[in-house]
Amino acid sequence: MDTYLAIASKRDERAYAETPIPAEVRQRILDSGRLSGSSKNRQRWEFVVVSGEAKDRLAEAVYAPENVRTAALVVAIVGEASGFDAGRCAQNMMVAAWADGIGSCPAHLPEADVARLLSIPDGVHVNRVIGFGYVDPARAAAPKAVARRRKPLEELVHRARW
Amino acid sequence: MDTYLAIASKRDERAYAETPIPAEVRQRILDSGRLSGSSKNRQRWEFVVVSGEAKDRLAEAVYAPENVRTAALVVAIVGEASGFDAGRCAQNMMVAAWADGIGSCPAHLPEADVARLLSIPDGVHVNRVIGFGYVDPARAAAPKAVARRRKPLEELVHRARW
Repeated sequence: MDTYLAIASKRDERAYAETPIPAEVRQRILDSGRLSGSSKNRQRWEFVVVSGEAKDRLAEAVYAPENVRTAALVVAIVGEASGFDAGRCAQNMMVAAWADGIGSCPAHLPEADVARLLSIPDGVHVNRVIGFGYVDPARAAAPKAVARRRKPLEELVHRARW
Repeated sequence: MDTYLAIASKRDERAYAETPIPAEVRQRILDSGRLSGSSKNRQRWEFVVVSGEAKDRLAEAVYAPENVRTAALVVAIVGEASGFDAGRCAQNMMVAAWADGIGSCPAHLPEADVARLLSIPDGVHVNRVIGFGYVDPARAAAPKAVARRRKPLEELVHRARW
């Protein structure tokens, strides 16, 4: 898919089809995060790929369980990356996935619970959990909250200075 | 450009050719930020497009002046977006630009100085300044700091749990 088309059409999705994600596509998603730029190229992130029973328990810990429970791939971004760098990394993964027909959404999470469930050591920051899955054709319409229009550029852009 | 190719090949650049960026390409870059997903679709970002004299003064305020001074487009992301959401927004802009042959790099900045130079009101957070410009053919090799290899996936990925 064309890059700008993928970026401009990407919607955050929270409910997914049951179709599994092939191994090579999963790898491409993780590589897209891995290859992201970061401050001083520090790459201060690690990825926990959560599946099976751990995924079910994790679903109950996050604020939007469906996003994790129905996802075919769940990735926790952990480590000392800044929020900004973690966002760059996550967006790379989510846009690459979208170009393959896969929706995604970052989950809000109670960090201590997620760390306990995933046996993440003390002092290792859990930044975000992201659910990925093929877009469910039965729910192809965007959920209301996501379908809200974006603000027009005229509202956002200041020229030369504020 | 294919989405995954753009994501995987994107390098952060800090020195640019003098070629101006056409208006429609500038708009596509800003739209890529504008259309980014954000927590609860709050879109808590505004963009200050810095040019002319303000750009020269800004270059002296950031830690890597060349990134701003030689850039054909300089965008400050300001507002109450989380670092994570600002990172998603910035990555959208930078990957879209890359697909058009335009390099970019976020600049580290002393926030108070930048706010003063751009007349940004008290209480409005300056998240990042990003320089954009066509890749300078005379300097097409990646600077050493950027060319460092990324860690392999095996070092980053934990399966099921830490």
